[in-house]
Amino acid sequence: MMIPAAVNLGIELRVLAENVGSSAELAAYAVGDYLDKDTVLEFAAGVDVVTFDHEHVPQSVLRALVEAGHAVNPSPDALRFAQDKIVMRQRLAELGVPIPEWAAVSSEAELDDFIAANGGSAVVKTPRGGYDGKGVRVVTAGAQAADWFRIMAEDGRGGALLAEEKVDFRRELAQLVARRPSGEIAYWPVVETVQLEGVCAEVIAPAPGSLGRVADVAADIATMIAEGVGVTGVLAVELFETTDQRLLVNELAMRPHNSGHWTIDGSTTSQFEQHLRAVLDLPLGATGSRDAFSVMVNILGGPSEGSLADRYPLAFAEAPMVKFHNYGKAPRLGRKVGHVTAGGDDLDDVAFMARAAAAFFTD
Amino acid sequence: MMIPAAVNLGIELRVLAENVGSSAELAAYAVGDYLDKDTVLEFAAGVDVVTFDHEHVPQSVLRALVEAGHAVNPSPDALRFAQDKIVMRQRLAELGVPIPEWAAVSSEAELDDFIAANGGSAVVKTPRGGYDGKGVRVVTAGAQAADWFRIMAEDGRGGALLAEEKVDFRRELAQLVARRPSGEIAYWPVVETVQLEGVCAEVIAPAPGSLGRVADVAADIATMIAEGVGVTGVLAVELFETTDQRLLVNELAMRPHNSGHWTIDGSTTSQFEQHLRAVLDLPLGATGSRDAFSVMVNILGGPSEGSLADRYPLAFAEAPMVKFHNYGKAPRLGRKVGHVTAGGDDLDDVAFMARAAAAFFTD
Repeated sequence: MMIPAAVNLGIELRVLAENVGSSAELAAYAVGDYLDKDTVLEFAAGVDVVTFDHEHVPQSVLRALVEAGHAVNPSPDALRFAQDKIVMRQRLAELGVPIPEWAAVSSEAELDDFIAANGGSAVVKTPRGGYDGKGVRVVTAGAQAADWFRIMAEDGRGGALLAEEKVDFRRELAQLVARRPSGEIAYWPVVETVQLEGVCAEVIAPAPGSLGRVADVAADIATMIAEGVGVTGVLAVELFETTDQRLLVNELAMRPHNSGHWTIDGSTTSQFEQHLRAVLDLPLGATGSRDAFSVMVNILGGPSEGSLADRYPLAFAEAPMVKFHNYGKAPRLGRKVGHVTAGGDDLDDVAFMARAAAAFFTD
Repeated sequence: MMIPAAVNLGIELRVLAENVGSSAELAAYAVGDYLDKDTVLEFAAGVDVVTFDHEHVPQSVLRALVEAGHAVNPSPDALRFAQDKIVMRQRLAELGVPIPEWAAVSSEAELDDFIAANGGSAVVKTPRGGYDGKGVRVVTAGAQAADWFRIMAEDGRGGALLAEEKVDFRRELAQLVARRPSGEIAYWPVVETVQLEGVCAEVIAPAPGSLGRVADVAADIATMIAEGVGVTGVLAVELFETTDQRLLVNELAMRPHNSGHWTIDGSTTSQFEQHLRAVLDLPLGATGSRDAFSVMVNILGGPSEGSLADRYPLAFAEAPMVKFHNYGKAPRLGRKVGHVTAGGDDLDDVAFMARAAAAFFTD
């Protein structure tokens, strides 16, 4: 999804892809292992700025890039916080950002203590590598995370799990923000994200009823984090809006994020264009909405037979106003294989349009 | 500019480019000569549909594609009208489409007769290969086209020049329309095009004061042509609005066209996405404007030193609302190397924004 923004601005994009046939193949690309320092260093020699579409490049590789004189945005110092949820909670606590109660627990007993102190349940997370609900578990006893503790013990590196209070929330929000190395910050309207089994299903921009205090607080939180951890590029801050009207930070992503896909069609500047501007330290674009409401619906899984494109004749005929995005991935249960975005003045109409259009692509 | 639309829809684009280093290089591409039948046939073997970004592929090559069973949109029968201005005038006359007075003239004497019958001047055009003001000349005597007649005589193929009345127009308009093989048609709002020395400098969408009769007549003319010549894909109809309020067809282009670049940022469906939909015979997208007014300004020539991107820091800082398009071409006097588009409610503001943003990229 970065390619259209790069093409428009005449920015040459080179991609280090994990394997042949990945979506990134559409750009000029090299195939290689991002865990291998030499591969990444060789790739970086041909570019002006290195950036990322996930957080899993090891610190040792990132540091080697910086030492070799490459511009790396976001920097290893910033990415560290997106790579380890416990490091991130520590930093957010230092910054005074509102977050759920949390603890780093390294045994079932410690987790039991946390559960007892937090109303009888906890959300347990592996600090690294989780996404889309993976590496997250709601537990009522330490023993329910026994397998994770055992793996940690076996790999011998010590470490801990992250335990968090199970927040009583009325909905989930996300605040997207971009920051340049020179410090300029731009944020989009705060959005509501609707999750299905831990996976983002739908995004409503702006979050209904968010004008005023909610929008201000969300923007303040995201700005505080972007500055406090030195983000360069796009930062997505996932938030809980609690039943007592507080906002608490749930997760961070230091890259263009699913909660911002609506910006491709719904904002003057898409998160992908903004990420390019930010990592190149160029002035940021305007982040206003192009419609009163935008609704983005993910296409999860795709059809059990055939391809997404097989459904174009029906879907396009029924939804001429809707923008379709097909990631060119093979359909697979639960996989994000595309999304649709609709925009307009009436939220009910817009949401209906987007949901109906997305429904053409699943069985 | 087709690449972003193709990427969004997950449509694989393959380009037969004239040479290495052309803008089309950003897509998967082959390098080869579109005049060579074997080259084009070999290229076509790997794709579902063949389409064009210019009109200069010879009929013999186009017919060979069709004979070999390839889907070719627009078809050779339709493209013929875009390839030869005299053939096109004949067809438009048959269709009853309003056009300037014209004649096919094969000698200075015939041109002198036409000039005498049309108020003492004529616009003379070479029937093939002209664009951006090339192959067009205003004359007051047949002798002023002597060189063109001589070339025709020397190449021994006979033929004629197109002579047209010099229309007394108050402004130039363009009507963009798309048509599928199955017959569905969609048109965008009629726009005003501002030419500088025969080259499009600026496009205002919609054309000011065009709501009502002008819009209806322009759409009718374009629809009549699209159906009458069997266009499949995007058709741009350049029009004169005469001082006595008539619309006359000036030129046709059977492909996405400069007068439609505003649609990338200013319409629900860009001309490039619509062209892809149309040539794939998929239902067309909505063609409404996203803003009350959009103004597109071409970047002509570019800076005399350095690249367009060198101007990004200043331009982006001053114009956060403006969308920038950089074709990745080397700056050269008069060459279209990029464009900018602004949108909003107030035409004066929008036009100022777009012109000011474009001015950052020339000396």
